[in-house]
Amino acid sequence: MSVTYPKGFRAAAMSAGLKPSGNLDLALLVGDEGTTVAGLFTTNLVKAAPVSISQRRIASGDPSPVSVLVNSGQANAATGQLGVSDAERSTAAAARELGLLDEQVLPCSTGVIGEPIHMRELLEGLPKLVASLTSDGGDGFARAIMTTDTVAKVAVADAGPHRVGGCAKGAGMIAPSLATMLSFITTDAAVSAANLSALAQNHLKPVFNSVTVDGCTSTNDTVLLFASGAAGQPEVVPATPEWAQLESAVAEVGASLARQLIADGEGVKHVMLVRVEGASDVDAARVMAKAVADSPLVKTAIFGEDANPGRILQALGSSGAWFDPDAVDVRFGDVALVRSGVVDPACFDGPELVAAAAAEMAGPEVNLEIRVGDGPGSSLVLGCDLTYEYVRINGEYTT
Amino acid sequence: MSVTYPKGFRAAAMSAGLKPSGNLDLALLVGDEGTTVAGLFTTNLVKAAPVSISQRRIASGDPSPVSVLVNSGQANAATGQLGVSDAERSTAAAARELGLLDEQVLPCSTGVIGEPIHMRELLEGLPKLVASLTSDGGDGFARAIMTTDTVAKVAVADAGPHRVGGCAKGAGMIAPSLATMLSFITTDAAVSAANLSALAQNHLKPVFNSVTVDGCTSTNDTVLLFASGAAGQPEVVPATPEWAQLESAVAEVGASLARQLIADGEGVKHVMLVRVEGASDVDAARVMAKAVADSPLVKTAIFGEDANPGRILQALGSSGAWFDPDAVDVRFGDVALVRSGVVDPACFDGPELVAAAAAEMAGPEVNLEIRVGDGPGSSLVLGCDLTYEYVRINGEYTT
Repeated sequence: MSVTYPKGFRAAAMSAGLKPSGNLDLALLVGDEGTTVAGLFTTNLVKAAPVSISQRRIASGDPSPVSVLVNSGQANAATGQLGVSDAERSTAAAARELGLLDEQVLPCSTGVIGEPIHMRELLEGLPKLVASLTSDGGDGFARAIMTTDTVAKVAVADAGPHRVGGCAKGAGMIAPSLATMLSFITTDAAVSAANLSALAQNHLKPVFNSVTVDGCTSTNDTVLLFASGAAGQPEVVPATPEWAQLESAVAEVGASLARQLIADGEGVKHVMLVRVEGASDVDAARVMAKAVADSPLVKTAIFGEDANPGRILQALGSSGAWFDPDAVDVRFGDVALVRSGVVDPACFDGPELVAAAAAEMAGPEVNLEIRVGDGPGSSLVLGCDLTYEYVRINGEYTT
Repeated sequence: MSVTYPKGFRAAAMSAGLKPSGNLDLALLVGDEGTTVAGLFTTNLVKAAPVSISQRRIASGDPSPVSVLVNSGQANAATGQLGVSDAERSTAAAARELGLLDEQVLPCSTGVIGEPIHMRELLEGLPKLVASLTSDGGDGFARAIMTTDTVAKVAVADAGPHRVGGCAKGAGMIAPSLATMLSFITTDAAVSAANLSALAQNHLKPVFNSVTVDGCTSTNDTVLLFASGAAGQPEVVPATPEWAQLESAVAEVGASLARQLIADGEGVKHVMLVRVEGASDVDAARVMAKAVADSPLVKTAIFGEDANPGRILQALGSSGAWFDPDAVDVRFGDVALVRSGVVDPACFDGPELVAAAAAEMAGPEVNLEIRVGDGPGSSLVLGCDLTYEYVRINGEYTT
């Protein structure tokens, strides 16, 4: 059910002809009157036109945006003034059909950077798209935002009297700060824009900043969190049991979508869970965990199911974060291969230890447990292996 | 001729049995009495035992090291106290055979991280190795230091009455700060240790910091520059014509070795020359050039000969260095694809422009010319594509 699992939302999707494949490529999500919204956006200096416009419309908040129009096929990034004008014309046309003000519709694009939106097809499709809005349109919406994704990513959760639903797309260009993808999450709780923003900052940003497919941050990353209030309950405010339920449900949906993004990463055979503990602080822990998860030498070793502690030490040591090299322990799952900075000589004395570690890598999830000292900082980063398939997809596909 | 092209050096190489393959794996280079030395070492926090020992012996300078003993097969990194003791015992044994003091022999290792040196084989081989030292042993020396390299990298240059020669190894774990490899460069000029250190800092460090195969900085990176004085000329000092000649020859040998390292990078089909101009300063330019050269999305596009300017903008924008996105120009060779931050719409209007850009990528070298503004900072970084072969080599090989 995705984004239409909560009450007060309608969604629609269509093939407007933006993608040569003829797949679904235009999607619309609309919340009831009174819907509030919060957003998280790419940190890339090169921002797509729809990102700048959405940031501005959410920051203004008057009127509050209640809708998002998403096209896939063209990213509308590095398109200059034409790109700004295309995004404004698209959302203005949607607003007219919806009976909303232009500023109430947010633009969102994903696809090839540099290519202008196929405006003729988009504008022709819009009336039909709006006419097909329905309160069970979430699944189509989730499919229409896909590019190189192989499956739609959807998640739902309950929060007492409230519901939370969401979907996401993204398979490459995914990295912390902010994970490069589009994600849309909805709830039928009544939440003020300010509180919704806190919810996104505290419970969605850390989740999406802890996944990395290839260390590449895109020009279009966007997370939008909408609250319709349509459950008919009193406004949910911080420091109440209802708020805690809502926090937990939003975090659960975010974590599920993030995990699904990694599992569907381009060419991924193994998801890699890198846990760093004992760092001086959480930032140092995340820098180290991300350095391991993004290292091509670690990623190819995981692909080859080669228990290679040297490459992990190499990645930690060049991460830029400080630690004592003589205090590092590394485990592959339950199998310790490095103790106090020294690789266990049994790695080279016979097949047993290496085979035990390799067995920890045979499944779809590989756990790398790293302790770098006695500090309070810890972090978990989700990454993946680097495979022939990743090279094939990105060598042959124009993004 | 490699490192024995200049007078006053002898070298030897042998298969001592450190590598299971039976290939050459132990090498020795010895300069005449009075030889001076300068070194550049990895910035990785996790330093191999031989790196720490060589740094200390060069810093002390009393007595001056005149020799280096190199083993390939085991990196002697993350080996703890045993690693320190093995490196000290190896060089002490070599010093005894050579009639030198222990501190005059530098240890150097490359191979699998974590595996202790096969000391029995090394110590058994040493007398034969020393006995086979010869003034034309440079080529064997260059071959013995190889690991996954497919060819030996050697270069020579003349500097008026002086000669400069060198060799290098390295094919993966190669990245700026400091390029991860071993490189040994010799000259028969007479140069004080202090001036030799300046020569290495000014003319070798920038060269090796501007190459990247995979953004991974190893635990063992070492560049050693030896000066024997055996040409029989007066001491060469800065601000003389002889110094300028020597600077130029050392830089030429360094640049040639760096280029050869990239061309032999693991699985490389295309060398990528990323030039960034117009940045606020040289550091910003290098950060941006390196971000482009290390981006897996750019690297796979180069492999696929796909002229993809969006991925270059994406990499620049997430590099961490500041620039004005509306001032960026990008050319593939002579073909402009981005002007003032906007991708040329002709990229999507027909096959001509993309085909012209793709033609610039058909050869073994691809030039990416990036202007990010009007600032004085520029940088050239040498990178390479990401290929099936890279994944195969690193998925199957334990380093």
